[in-house]
Amino acid sequence: MSKKIGVILSGCGYLDGAEIQESVLTLLAIDREGASAVCMAPDVDQMHVVNHISQEEMPGQRNVLTEAGRIVRGQIQDIKTVSASDLDALILPGGYGVAKNLSDFAVKGADCSVQADVARLLRDILKANKPIGVICIAPAVMAKVAQDSGEAVTLTIGNDADTAAALGEMGVQHVDRPVEDIVIDEAHKIVSTPAYMLPDRLSKIEEGISKLVHAVIEMS
Amino acid sequence: MSKKIGVILSGCGYLDGAEIQESVLTLLAIDREGASAVCMAPDVDQMHVVNHISQEEMPGQRNVLTEAGRIVRGQIQDIKTVSASDLDALILPGGYGVAKNLSDFAVKGADCSVQADVARLLRDILKANKPIGVICIAPAVMAKVAQDSGEAVTLTIGNDADTAAALGEMGVQHVDRPVEDIVIDEAHKIVSTPAYMLPDRLSKIEEGISKLVHAVIEMS
Repeated sequence: MSKKIGVILSGCGYLDGAEIQESVLTLLAIDREGASAVCMAPDVDQMHVVNHISQEEMPGQRNVLTEAGRIVRGQIQDIKTVSASDLDALILPGGYGVAKNLSDFAVKGADCSVQADVARLLRDILKANKPIGVICIAPAVMAKVAQDSGEAVTLTIGNDADTAAALGEMGVQHVDRPVEDIVIDEAHKIVSTPAYMLPDRLSKIEEGISKLVHAVIEMS
Repeated sequence: MSKKIGVILSGCGYLDGAEIQESVLTLLAIDREGASAVCMAPDVDQMHVVNHISQEEMPGQRNVLTEAGRIVRGQIQDIKTVSASDLDALILPGGYGVAKNLSDFAVKGADCSVQADVARLLRDILKANKPIGVICIAPAVMAKVAQDSGEAVTLTIGNDADTAAALGEMGVQHVDRPVEDIVIDEAHKIVSTPAYMLPDRLSKIEEGISKLVHAVIEMS
């Protein structure tokens, strides 16, 4: 039996959902490690819909689960139906969707709250000491769940001072890292990588994500 | 100066647009080869919008260029503005969008027609004997453009008998190939790979696409 790695997606497109490239590279790395991805998303409306060329809000409403299904060819389930016991590890790719749909970090910063099922699953995985990988802006959600669980964790979101400060307010020890590198919090089995928090060539983004996935699966 | 590889996208999501995983893996391979991707799409409405979980049509209208912009973080241009002289090579990832938005192959099969700007660019690149890569179902569009240009080309779409027969009607010599392999038409500098025409592990899809991109860039 191959290891089951949960992947939480937050929509489809980095301005209002999951960062697509990070999501696909996460799935590629999981497959290369011989593990299986269990993709999931909350069945909720997106905060809004953004035109990715003009970067302006556009009319309409989209569902996070439905849109995330585009990335994974429909192979995705409602996160409500997933328990920590179903998984060997859990990974969150980035994109503003993490800060807009999986939490309200984009609006409230360190005072954010995390969507109920995302918080439950992250908390249960953390409690079970199973490994967690957080990519790009996803450490923000990890920070809030760790804070609510009374755990002081070590993470990277690259080197953005404001975001690092917000993570610090949530009790995180932030470590600067280049895009192709990872930070491992051994005690909590949490691995993080900056990815598109530090926009770079796709092959460098891929390097960081591959290292993260390898470390997560190795600890599982 | 790095080589400029055009990438034509057909939306965002394999049931009504570009196959997202194939698109990202194409961009990754181009970057790894040290070349630059020039992403483009036609500024037209999608044929329809499909829920990728239920696989049923859903209400609403989406624009091919706008949605394709999600995959490439907004770094995309209207194909109308791109000429063959701007590019060293051209690659088309797959997805039903190729057969629904870049052409009407999904509806009309061998009697299809190709969207005017896509046809123009493919025809001009073919005429200039610059290399072309066609992934998944994209060989259908290549077949029609080659037929209209009076060229008999050799392609693979995997091993689907009906699709291969439709390509045959358009004058293509079809060659069966496994997912991780490519077919090279040396005379026309056209490379094809089955990708998700033969659904398989993502790392096998990636293998075929990497080989295709390498061959295309090597011939450019």
